[in-house]
This record gives sequence, structure tokens and C-alpha cells, in this order.
Amino acid sequence: MANSKYEYVRAFERDEVLLPNTWIVVRIDGRGFHKLSTHYHFTKPNDVRALNLMNLAASHVVASIPDITIAYGVSDEYSFVFHKTTNLFERRCAKLVTTVVSTFTAAYVALWPSTFEASGGGVGDGDGGGGGDALSLTMLPTFDGRAVCYPSWGNLRDYLSWRQVDCHINNLYNTTFWALVQQGGMSPTAAEEHLKGSVSSDKNEILWSKFGINYNDEPDMFRKGSVIFREYALEPSTGPKQEVGIEGADDEVGIEGADDESRGLQSPVTKTQAEKMKKIRRKAKVVTSHVDIIRDEFWLHRPWIRSGKPGKLIVDHVKS
Amino acid sequence: MANSKYEYVRAFERDEVLLPNTWIVVRIDGRGFHKLSTHYHFTKPNDVRALNLMNLAASHVVASIPDITIAYGVSDEYSFVFHKTTNLFERRCAKLVTTVVSTFTAAYVALWPSTFEASGGGVGDGDGGGGGDALSLTMLPTFDGRAVCYPSWGNLRDYLSWRQVDCHINNLYNTTFWALVQQGGMSPTAAEEHLKGSVSSDKNEILWSKFGINYNDEPDMFRKGSVIFREYALEPSTGPKQEVGIEGADDEVGIEGADDESRGLQSPVTKTQAEKMKKIRRKAKVVTSHVDIIRDEFWLHRPWIRSGKPGKLIVDHVKS
Amino acid sequence: MANSKYEYVRAFERDEVLLPNTWIVVRIDGRGFHKLSTHYHFTKPNDVRALNLMNLAASHVVASIPDITIAYGVSDEYSFVFHKTTNLFERRCAKLVTTVVSTFTAAYVALWPSTFEASGGGVGDGDGGGGGDALSLTMLPTFDGRAVCYPSWGNLRDYLSWRQVDCHINNLYNTTFWALVQQGGMSPTAAEEHLKGSVSSDKNEILWSKFGINYNDEPDMFRKGSVIFREYALEPSTGPKQEVGIEGADDEVGIEGADDESRGLQSPVTKTQAEKMKKIRRKAKVVTSHVDIIRDEFWLHRPWIRSGKPGKLIVDHVKS
Amino acid sequence: MANSKYEYVRAFERDEVLLPNTWIVVRIDGRGFHKLSTHYHFTKPNDVRALNLMNLAASHVVASIPDITIAYGVSDEYSFVFHKTTNLFERRCAKLVTTVVSTFTAAYVALWPSTFEASGGGVGDGDGGGGGDALSLTMLPTFDGRAVCYPSWGNLRDYLSWRQVDCHINNLYNTTFWALVQQGGMSPTAAEEHLKGSVSSDKNEILWSKFGINYNDEPDMFRKGSVIFREYALEPSTGPKQEVGIEGADDEVGIEGADDESRGLQSPVTKTQAEKMKKIRRKAKVVTSHVDIIRDEFWLHRPWIRSGKPGKLIVDHVKS
Repeated sequence: MANSKYEYVRAFERDEVLLPNTWIVVRIDGRGFHKLSTHYHFTKPNDVRALNLMNLAASHVVASIPDITIAYGVSDEYSFVFHKTTNLFERRCAKLVTTVVSTFTAAYVALWPSTFEASGGGVGDGDGGGGGDALSLTMLPTFDGRAVCYPSWGNLRDYLSWRQVDCHINNLYNTTFWALVQQGGMSPTAAEEHLKGSVSSDKNEILWSKFGINYNDEPDMFRKGSVIFREYALEPSTGPKQEVGIEGADDEVGIEGADDESRGLQSPVTKTQAEKMKKIRRKAKVVTSHVDIIRDEFWLHRPWIRSGKPGKLIVDHVKS
Repeated sequence: MANSKYEYVRAFERDEVLLPNTWIVVRIDGRGFHKLSTHYHFTKPNDVRALNLMNLAASHVVASIPDITIAYGVSDEYSFVFHKTTNLFERRCAKLVTTVVSTFTAAYVALWPSTFEASGGGVGDGDGGGGGDALSLTMLPTFDGRAVCYPSWGNLRDYLSWRQVDCHINNLYNTTFWALVQQGGMSPTAAEEHLKGSVSSDKNEILWSKFGINYNDEPDMFRKGSVIFREYALEPSTGPKQEVGIEGADDEVGIEGADDESRGLQSPVTKTQAEKMKKIRRKAKVVTSHVDIIRDEFWLHRPWIRSGKPGKLIVDHVKS
Repeated sequence: MANSKYEYVRAFERDEVLLPNTWIVVRIDGRGFHKLSTHYHFTKPNDVRALNLMNLAASHVVASIPDITIAYGVSDEYSFVFHKTTNLFERRCAKLVTTVVSTFTAAYVALWPSTFEASGGGVGDGDGGGGGDALSLTMLPTFDGRAVCYPSWGNLRDYLSWRQVDCHINNLYNTTFWALVQQGGMSPTAAEEHLKGSVSSDKNEILWSKFGINYNDEPDMFRKGSVIFREYALEPSTGPKQEVGIEGADDEVGIEGADDESRGLQSPVTKTQAEKMKKIRRKAKVVTSHVDIIRDEFWLHRPWIRSGKPGKLIVDHVKS
Repeated sequence: MANSKYEYVRAFERDEVLLPNTWIVVRIDGRGFHKLSTHYHFTKPNDVRALNLMNLAASHVVASIPDITIAYGVSDEYSFVFHKTTNLFERRCAKLVTTVVSTFTAAYVALWPSTFEASGGGVGDGDGGGGGDALSLTMLPTFDGRAVCYPSWGNLRDYLSWRQVDCHINNLYNTTFWALVQQGGMSPTAAEEHLKGSVSSDKNEILWSKFGINYNDEPDMFRKGSVIFREYALEPSTGPKQEVGIEGADDEVGIEGADDESRGLQSPVTKTQAEKMKKIRRKAKVVTSHVDIIRDEFWLHRPWIRSGKPGKLIVDHVKS
């Protein structure tokens, strides 16, 4: 039975190929997590178990896909950054996005029991409305996703800063809102009304004066979100910035000095070198930290995130 | 702290909106399922547990997203058809694809234990290589996906026929190949060589003469794949085709007779009617069957798949 | 000197391929024609020379590109419809659009002298502001363009109806506005104010009572725009609509009855037949008329526009 | 008469918006210029009139669209580079491409008589095949076009180098080929055969030994193509490259040092400043030269091409 009669339908398929030499950010977002967080009794404003699970799933994604150079997460969203030289799936948009979304979802669901049930949740009741912390088929966590291209390192840094500033703004608001509700006994509507038009300093003041909370003592994970990357031995940041790659000229050299890096191409390392880099990358520990990524300091110490080339392994980090 | 300084990065986001009045097919495919099927000891050429799990996950997707009018699956792939009038997520490509992929993945992972562990598999050993049928974090099932638009009903029917013919071709080959290997004692290479250049009748003959297998007695699920849809009372197919909607003129009327359907727009039913339709759709049973969808018969009896309008509920199917 | 070092830049090129089996409309619009029409002293509200030039240029485009099945123009815009089975330039969007825009522009500029200078314009003064009807380099007519895909015949008919209704609305307004200004002595602002909120019947009434103008006596070209197509012997419209192709089922047959037409594919006619069709098409006269294309009648008599297959040549139309 | 019934068709329109902070190159190509060059008796291998006309038309495009920072042309193709900060037409692809194509075509056709007829051509014979140098309606020059985005300055420089190397390769081949045919009396086929597998030095040798032609004495316009840009007072290139902007870090600074330029945004100059820049730009002379643009030198002296900010006017260049 020949299939040729119907095969013409393949001509309707379209492949969006993302522009070369751009940083690709795949951002995923929890679908309907407001409802889901109620169903599974997430603590407000931040549920440590839920954030840990996000981080575990994201860490799994980063470890599974070496082309991801850094990831940043806050609340129920996570951004995964593919190095601008990546040629994974020939940069086909749908492949990149769905692979990240599916890998994240699979890990999130598979790791749920270790995170939520271990903490004392009851057994899932299948279809039931009763709840408990075991996953119910009627309330499975799912994520949508999208890809965005950023042409320059400056744009990428701004993107990540945007997410981290957003984390700060939202967390300060939520911390104050829930303090008013949970400790201050206000209704959600009253709390919302109370905070309308307030600026950061107002919220800090409310937290301190009414509840004795110093916002800066809140956990870093809540205030700064989570950053995931491969860790190598830190580089000194004392040298000229040029040398540690932050103001370096990767795609900004004159043409005579242009190299493959500046062209957005993977350097034609020898096969032996490539194998070696691959091995180093696989040995590197994928770490999760909760630090400022807006200022230059983080980046100055970790030039491998921008360069895409593995740094020096830290001996006691190495996986056995 | 104002976020406006960084917010310009949103301008780099692009939304691909799929052409209105076209049938949207989201097809998902298992990633690296060859390796995965070995790891989890899938039976060759068909593993009933694995196929059942695919069907359960797909059924969950169809039940969760009412805009999906039919789905068709074979092996580790599944195609979900959104009705051409859908306006879900304003037809944004990334949202549609990632929602399907994530919902499918979540269900597949969550339902794995009920399908695979119940059948006698050992407990997963986390990182281990030992195997067993419990999910291991190092070998999570994941799926990629893509969306394709088909402008006409004829194109959509051809798409589905293409997949079902493919199912037939592959299954006949695999059945014969594995019979040669498992029962005939051939090496995989020898079996491959043996089948090179063979046509359907050759394979049927090999199966029958060497192994006493009548290919037509193989289970329908293997030979025809799986079709998932909402079931209503079947319509008679004796009337003129026109009336049961197969050759009907939905987008092919002259302009004076054009209606919203022909324009690819959702009919402006009253709010009460819409509520009623929604209720009926929710009550309809989502069924999985293994039938021919190439010929007209299947479609003639189920005009609601093409029209997108719910049929008559079957009383004893109705969910309580 | 090898070019390979730089050739990688080709990888940044993207080709948007328009969805098969959809009607492609390329619409062009005059750029800055308000200013241009003042510069070249166009008569208000309609300049016959300018409209004729638009029609001549469009006619040249239709004659040059056989895949265009019909074109419709009004004011300084023109829509060119490529048959849904076209495979011109492999349906690459940029090629289709720029070819139409460039061919139209070239003809418009080349034909300008025969249309405008013949009517008594002076010689162009190059850079000058003085004007005259000869083309000045500082005020060259240019056009932008875009492509839109319409999946069904109903959508295409609605598109063309949309443009013709727009022509009617604008022309009635402009006719009344300029009558108030030119014959009624109102200032443009006063006329605009006077017409604010008026409906069609109001404007008809103003024209008739104040200026003795029966709007229906205005030239068809002003009221209905211009339609350009290949003319063959008209078909009778008395038969069942089915047969003359308006409600016909081109892409709406059941699959068993599906043919290449319904798949959006060009029929595999023999080489001899293709040659014959090509010859007929080349012999057919490209005509410009000013008729209603909203109602079915126009289409019923000219089934070749929809089918894409040439009709019977009219003997005395045939080009020698 | 309400138009709302049909207006839904606008929902089928798609706008491709080109990625911000990327250099946009619109490249146009003559359609069927092989045939056209024969029809109008172009001199082989290079027709000075035809090249001059290309340059005049391109110069008109650059002068008309201030967002174009440089253009490069060879044979019947021209590349127009929009500065990466441009927001013209909100960076809509179709608008940018068709505007360039139409403006170029209009100028090319309008300027044809001054270039070709002045040189002694006969009067066009309308439909005729006889030829002559006046434009014939049956052989109008037209151009297609496309847009490509280049994320970095290095990529853009490589693109332009690619075109100029191509110019060199083709011109050396064509010069040798036509010498063999015109002066050497070879048939085209024989000449082609003769050159098969030859490298640059072979062709130089043929030209010199057989025809006494020193390829380097060929006109620059033939060997290097044409570069069009706004000319300001040259900048010294002795300073550090950093300062003249070639290796400068425009989008490569760390985030603390990031400015609007590095973000791909137009600097928020004051309205007065913007007016002043606009005025300077308008006064700048658009020049055409035939120089090497592969090496850094050209760029070091003309930093305004990369920065997009006007330089210092050259007094005697200023348009009156």
C-alpha cells in the first residue's frame, strides 16, 4: 500500500528556525497555578516545597541539555538560556520549546512525590476533590512555554534583570499582602486596598512597623529567585573587565579580528578538544543559587556562562 | 524599584498566530523512545502497556481540551486535531503546542505507575542503571511537538489517512521483522536484509508460511492505531452524504449562502445555547477505538467531529 | 579567493512559504498618494486619468503573471489574487509580493507619460516644485504591498466584497464631501463637520437635494471599482449552482471522492494538455470592468476564475 | 451599508516584525536581467550605462530613506542596510522590503531615458521586438527583494564582504570569459570549457598573456562594485580602534555600562537634538564610491555608518 497519495500533506509543515547568533531564551510558565496552589495547599506567599520542586525540575533540564548555559526561575516560571552559538535541533523553534517544556514537566511530575508526599501529604485520591498532597489526575501540573531571541549580550542581561526585578517587586508585594491577611487579620480585599499606590519603602515600613519583619532577612530564594548553572572554579574579577568577558568584544570586533565566536558560530575545535570539553561539562556540577544577577559581579566571576566554554573543574564538586 | 528600564526586552517576543479557518494538528512524538523502550523492557514489536499508556494520556488531553475534535495515535506519536473554528489561546502556536505537549507528558508520567508498575515491575532505583519498570529520573519519557495547519477538510482527512497508512506499513514490517528475529532466530541484520525490497504481500506470505501468522488476526490496535473522540449517538449514513456533512459545503458555498461556519468563525449562538453545548460536551464520553479512518464510513456516522457541534448524548455513556 | 569564509551569512536568510491550498491575495497601496495627488493636480474626488493608469498597470501585472486569476482595484490600491493551486516561486512570500509590487510600479511609471502628459501636462522640471503633470524625481509614485492567505473560497469572496463595500462607502463620502466643498463652497472642515454621523441615505439626499446629483448615475468605475480578469465565453448561470462551481465542493468532498483540486494541488494534466491550457490562457483577453462582485452572478458566469482552468475563447477577443 | 459583515477577513493578515537590535539588509535583484540585458543591448561583461543607472536608482533610495546607513551594489543586485536601531514601519518586513523595491523600481524606470536614450538609443517601439534603447512595455525592468536580519556588526561586515568577494569572483570570471569570446573568437561554450576548474591566478594569466589586460587596471566600479552612503568629514583612523567605533563595544558592554545604543534602542535625544540631526542628515551628500569595504580602513574613517549618528558636514558638499 503506497503512502505517496497522502504524503503531500507534509508540504503543509512549517519549521521556524531561530535567527543564528542570538541568545535563545525558552521561558516556561505554570498553567493555572493559582488554582493548583490552592488545591495542593501551597503555603502563601511562598511555598518552599513548591519552589524546591521547580528548582529540581529546572536543574534536571539544565543537566539534560548542555546547550543551556544558565537558567533563572521565580514563582511558577523558569527561563532557560541557550548559548547563542547553539545549533541544537538546527535551532528549530518548536523542537527547542517543546523539548524544554516536556522535560521540565516530566521531571516536575516525577519528582512531586519526593517533594510533596515526603512532607507528610496524604495519598492521592485519584479523581477526588478532597485534596491531599499526592498528585491528582484532575489537577496535574502543566506548563506552557515560548522562545525569544536576544541579539546581544546586553539584551540578554537586561532580560534576566527584568525577571529578577519582577521577582523582587512581586515578592515584596506578596510578603506584605499576606502579612496583612495572615498576621494582620485583614480580608484580601482590604489588604489589596491598603497597598494600592504604595511604593517599596511603604511596604518595607508596613512589614517592619506592623509585623517586625525586616524584609532583607527574608530568604534569598524568595527575594532573588533561583539561578542554575554549571559551576567551575571562580575567576578573579580584579583584572580588566575586557579579559573576563563582560565588556569583551565577542561579536563586536572589527572584521579583521573577527573569529568564529563573533560570527555566532561554534569554534572549529578539534574532535579531541570537543570530546574533552564535553567531558568537562558533564563532570561540572549543576548548582542552584539565589544571588543578584543584575550587577556585573556575578558574571565577572563566571565568564564561562557567556563564553559557552567550560571553565576549570572544582575538584570536590566533580561527580564520581 | 521601577522595572521600566528593562521592560523593553518584551519587544523581542514574537507570537505566531495560526491562520484562521484552518484545521490545526498538533503532533507529538516520543523523544529517544528507541532507547527508552529498551530501558523499560518494552515488548517488541508492540508493547500493550506502552500503547495503553499513550492512549490514556491522549484521552486525558482530549478530555481536558474541548477544542480538540479528534486524536489519532500510533506507536509513540499522537496527533491532536483542533477544530478549524477554535480560538483557543487566540490560536497562538506556541501556547497550543506546549499546552498539548505538557498535558500529555504530565499524564504519561503520572499514569506510568498504574500501567507499568501494576504489571509487576520493581521499584525505581532513582539514578540507577539496573532498570525495572518504575520510572527512573535518568530515563524520563519526554515528547516534542509541532503544529501544522490544514486549510480544507480534504487535507485534514488526507493527513489522518497518511498517519494510518504509515501505521499499517510500519506495523506489518515490524511484525514480520520481529517474527524473523524472535521466532525465526535471525539476527536483526539478517532480518533487515531479508526484508529489503519486499512488498506487503511478501511480508504477509512470510508471516503465514513461516510462522502461521495471519496478519489480519493481529490486534486492531496494532494494525490500525488508536482514534480518540467524544462519542454521541451514531447518525445513520443512509441519507445523502450532503446531509451528514462529509461532502457538505461548509466553506464552499457561494457568498449569498455563506454562514459563519463557512467563514471559519464560531457561530454566534446565544449564551444559553453555548452553555448547553458546553454541558453536553462535558457529559460526552471520550472513547478510544481502533478503526479505519481512511474510508468515509467512520466520518459519515460521526458528523460532529467535522461540524464541531455536539451530537446527541448516549444515555448510558453519560458521566454521572 | 574563496568566498567560503563569509558565506555562512546565508544561514541568516529566512523564506516564508505561504500555506498550500490557500488563496493568496497580494494587495498593494500607493505610498503618500494624498500628497502625490496634490502635486500632480489630481481631480477630486476621482481623477479618471489616475484611475485609468492604475488599471493599465494592474492589467499589465495580470497579463504578465498567469497565476493571477483576478484583480480588484479601488483608489490607489489593488488586490491581486493568486489561484490557490499556484506554486509560483514555490509560494515564497517575499518573491510573490515584491514581484507584484515591482511589476506594478514599473508599469505605472512607464505608462505615466501616455496617461498624464498626453492630457496636456507640461514637461517635468526635475527637482522643481512648480509641478506640471510630467513625473518629477522628487515625487515618484511608489507602492507598498503585502500578502494574505485565505483558506476557503468563501473567505476570498468575503475579502473581495470587503474591498468593494469599502469602495462604495468611501466614494459616496468623497463624492458628497467634494460636492459640498467644490460646488457648495464649504471649507473642508465645515464639510467634514456637516457629514459627521451621516448615513448613506443622508449623503444620497444631500447630493440630490443640494446639487441635483443622482449618486447612482455616477460612473461605475467610481462606485464599484475595477475588476480585471481573463475573459472567456460566459457560461450560462441557469443550471444548478453546483455545476457552475460556486457552491461546488472543490475542497469539500469526502475523501473517496477527493481529487487533486480538492487537495490544493495542480491537476496532473498531460504535458500536451498543459501546453494547450497555457496557449489558451495567453490568447485570452485581459479585461477591465466595473461590476458588482459581491453577489453571486458575476461568479456564476465566470467559473474559470475559481477553477483556475481556462474557459472557451471568444473568437473576436483573441489576440492576433 | 455596513462593512462589518466582511471585515473579519482582516484577521487573516499577518505582520512579520523583524527582530529588534539587528541590522536589516534588504537585497534586491533584477528579474530576468539576462534576457533584458540582451534586449537592450547591454555591453558585456559590464555595461557602464546600466551600472550607472543602478547606482542612480540606489542613490535615490538612500536619499529617500534616512534609516538606510549604507548600500552596496554589484551587477543587477543592490543591498540596502537599515541601521539596527531603526523603527521604520515598526520594522514590519513587508513594508520595508516593498518600499525599497518600489522606490528602486520607480527610480530605475524614471531615470532610464536620461541614461539610455541620451546615449543614442532609438525610440521605443511599444510592443515591438526590434529593440532599441527606449523602454518597451513588453520588457520592463523589475526587481524582487528580501530582508535578512544580522544580529551583530561582525555579521553585517561579513555579509558585505561576502557580496564584495562575490563581485570580484564573478567579474574576474566574466572579464576573462568575454575576452576569450569577444577578442579571442571562442564560442561561449568553448570559453566556458576553457575556464572550467581555473583559479584566480589562471584567469589573471590568461587576461595578461593572451589579451594584454592587467586585471587590476580594470575600472574600480567593475572590480569592487559600488558603495553608497552619506558622506561627512572623514575621521582620523590613528586613534585607538575603540574610539572610532570598529571594535567598540556597542552592544557588548556589561550591564552597568549599557546604554540605549547597546540595547538597540534609539537614544532619547531631545527634540531639538533630533531635529538638528535630521537637518544634518538631510544636508549630507549621498555619495557613490568604488572602494574596498572588506578591510577595516573604510569603516574606521566613517564611524557614522555604524553609529547611525551624523558626522560633521563637509562644507562644500552641503546641498544648497
